[in-house]
Amino acid sequence: MTNRSLLILPGDGIGPEVMAEVRKIIDWFGTRGLAFHVSEDLVGGAAYDAHGTPLHDDTMAKAQEVDAVLLGAVGGPKYDVLDFSVKPERGLLRLRKEMDLFANLRPAQCFDALADFSSLKKEVVSGLDIMIVRELTSGVYFGEPRGIHVEGNERVGINTQRYTESEIDRVARAAFDLARKRDGRLCSMEKANVMESGILWREVVQAVGDKDYPDVELSHMYADAGAMQLTRWPKQFDVIVTDNLFGDLLSDLAAMLTGSLGMLPSASLGAPMENGRPKALYEPVHGSAPDIAGQGKANPIACILSFAMALRYSFDLGAEAGRLEKAVEDVLADGLRTADLLGKEGATPVSTAEMGDAIVTKL
Amino acid sequence: MTNRSLLILPGDGIGPEVMAEVRKIIDWFGTRGLAFHVSEDLVGGAAYDAHGTPLHDDTMAKAQEVDAVLLGAVGGPKYDVLDFSVKPERGLLRLRKEMDLFANLRPAQCFDALADFSSLKKEVVSGLDIMIVRELTSGVYFGEPRGIHVEGNERVGINTQRYTESEIDRVARAAFDLARKRDGRLCSMEKANVMESGILWREVVQAVGDKDYPDVELSHMYADAGAMQLTRWPKQFDVIVTDNLFGDLLSDLAAMLTGSLGMLPSASLGAPMENGRPKALYEPVHGSAPDIAGQGKANPIACILSFAMALRYSFDLGAEAGRLEKAVEDVLADGLRTADLLGKEGATPVSTAEMGDAIVTKL
Ligand SMILES: CC(C)[C@H](C(=O)O)[C@@H](O)C(=O)O
Ligand SMILES: CC(C)[C@H](C(=O)O)[C@@H](O)C(=O)O
Repeated sequence: MTNRSLLILPGDGIGPEVMAEVRKIIDWFGTRGLAFHVSEDLVGGAAYDAHGTPLHDDTMAKAQEVDAVLLGAVGGPKYDVLDFSVKPERGLLRLRKEMDLFANLRPAQCFDALADFSSLKKEVVSGLDIMIVRELTSGVYFGEPRGIHVEGNERVGINTQRYTESEIDRVARAAFDLARKRDGRLCSMEKANVMESGILWREVVQAVGDKDYPDVELSHMYADAGAMQLTRWPKQFDVIVTDNLFGDLLSDLAAMLTGSLGMLPSASLGAPMENGRPKALYEPVHGSAPDIAGQGKANPIACILSFAMALRYSFDLGAEAGRLEKAVEDVLADGLRTADLLGKEGATPVSTAEMGDAIVTKL
Repeated sequence: MTNRSLLILPGDGIGPEVMAEVRKIIDWFGTRGLAFHVSEDLVGGAAYDAHGTPLHDDTMAKAQEVDAVLLGAVGGPKYDVLDFSVKPERGLLRLRKEMDLFANLRPAQCFDALADFSSLKKEVVSGLDIMIVRELTSGVYFGEPRGIHVEGNERVGINTQRYTESEIDRVARAAFDLARKRDGRLCSMEKANVMESGILWREVVQAVGDKDYPDVELSHMYADAGAMQLTRWPKQFDVIVTDNLFGDLLSDLAAMLTGSLGMLPSASLGAPMENGRPKALYEPVHGSAPDIAGQGKANPIACILSFAMALRYSFDLGAEAGRLEKAVEDVLADGLRTADLLGKEGATPVSTAEMGDAIVTKL
């Protein structure tokens, strides 16, 4: 019996097809003596269709038990009419919250072979390699009070941005730890000039740095200036740490700089479990892309690289992660391109499945 | 006696020097029979130095009486140590709030002569001309409760995002009106998938459109996707309307796409006064740039174009605004460049004052 357990939640749209390719990679590792115990379940619209809820309690319980959850994507136009409380996104948000996955790691890396796909000039993005650490379980996403109520003769919509010192402290530490393993620089972003929660954010991050990470070069930037600087010259950054809502925008912005969303993985990590592994969920940055679902056009690489992050962060298999990442680079260097990456000369168009097979072959 | 009154608040850093150039423009219009009654006062750090507050009550009162306020910039490292409540920014925020300037108009226009300065590819930004309408007097900037307090044994930072139907309604109308005068397309951005205030925002904007602007093509986008799409292909947009905080990030991002912050003006408009003119404040998008203050290096064009916006929106002098904008384009076509725009071939370096003089000459 293996002691590596994975729960796969393919979700909606292109989720199932990209996940099928990850399965091939997992199988390949299995035949090489690195077995994973894999179970599969529903999330998002798929779960709603089956159970009337975007995440069944049984699935939630399973997610709490495994070493890592691998999620495809959720959502689709079919579910737009649903009530807020049962929308596909709620399934994902529930996983994040109940597993307490406070640190969302969003690498924005520009693959040299693909730099042309960026809307930015080549010299601005080629070689780009930054990491955004987004707080994922607090802030305005979860703060109370919230809702729409009537005041006088009109409705009022309310949400609450709320951060405790310990919530800021733990995500700051996750970011400092990463900076230490990378280029040793951390930039924290908030709106301390306007928001008291931003003042507390800045103070706590500074205190953590002063006390326990004097070797990491820490800077602070207002989030609006951060959006500007990411656009102007993103290579100035190494690791960025920011809150849930700013992180949502800034990590998507950073992802788009690279020009190829179909390539970008993410990891969401929580506290260590009894076996020492962190609670963890891995998912591609791209969405469910319902417009191309089921046509073999989806790029499975973001989901495959999310599994590589699982190898590294959940199973301490850094060498194997590197091997998988190298295989991806190699197929790209060979010119293999799924539909999202076509349009440049010298490319060999491949389907979702062909891309998965090619990566297995490289392994 | 003229019936056009202006209050000039040069503020900090490069504020006074760029404003000196605007004065030349105002004087030029004066000698051509278009007189303005101009008064001047302090704001930001300059006001704090003189009065211990970033905006004196007398200045606030004056701002309420004039047709338009023209502001340079506020802030500087000297004031970083000040308490939140007296920071330079609070002066600006008080003006916005007490004048009830709910619609912040932030054009992002790429001047052909300057497209090279963008970090984006020329084809992505040349000819770019979008308008972001940011709600400016509500949302998380002003919502209560707010502050830092102790809960159990730790501090908690809290801010409140809060929007009423009427607040959304009025800024939506401002945006629809602009879209009607432009390309007839409006995109509204929020996070309705996560925030109830975003759900209300989307509903109210849609209702205003359905009822009173059926001729304007309305779409909705999540703000994170908005950040991505602005980066990927900004020309897909005409007018964007969004809340105070998203607007802060997205308008700065849009500004940076153009590559030349020193060129971008803004207008903040409120309800019509008795004389029919809206309450109004105009300011350049750039900050106080303390590092280059007093050296004749600042670009006065953003501030001059802010005055052009005043001509158009406060004084119904669209032709004169156009004339001033044309003069700016002409000096750029002649190759005149302040320090921020140097580095490309064929440019003639000029100082702040020389740029102002050249624009007057073109007029
Ligand atoms: C799907 C949505 C709820 C989610 C978020 O806003 O966090 C997404 O945008 C993300 O960044 O993972
Ligand atoms: C100076 C600051 C308070 C302000 C804001 O956050 O609104 C600025 O960033 C702006 O966009 O005008």
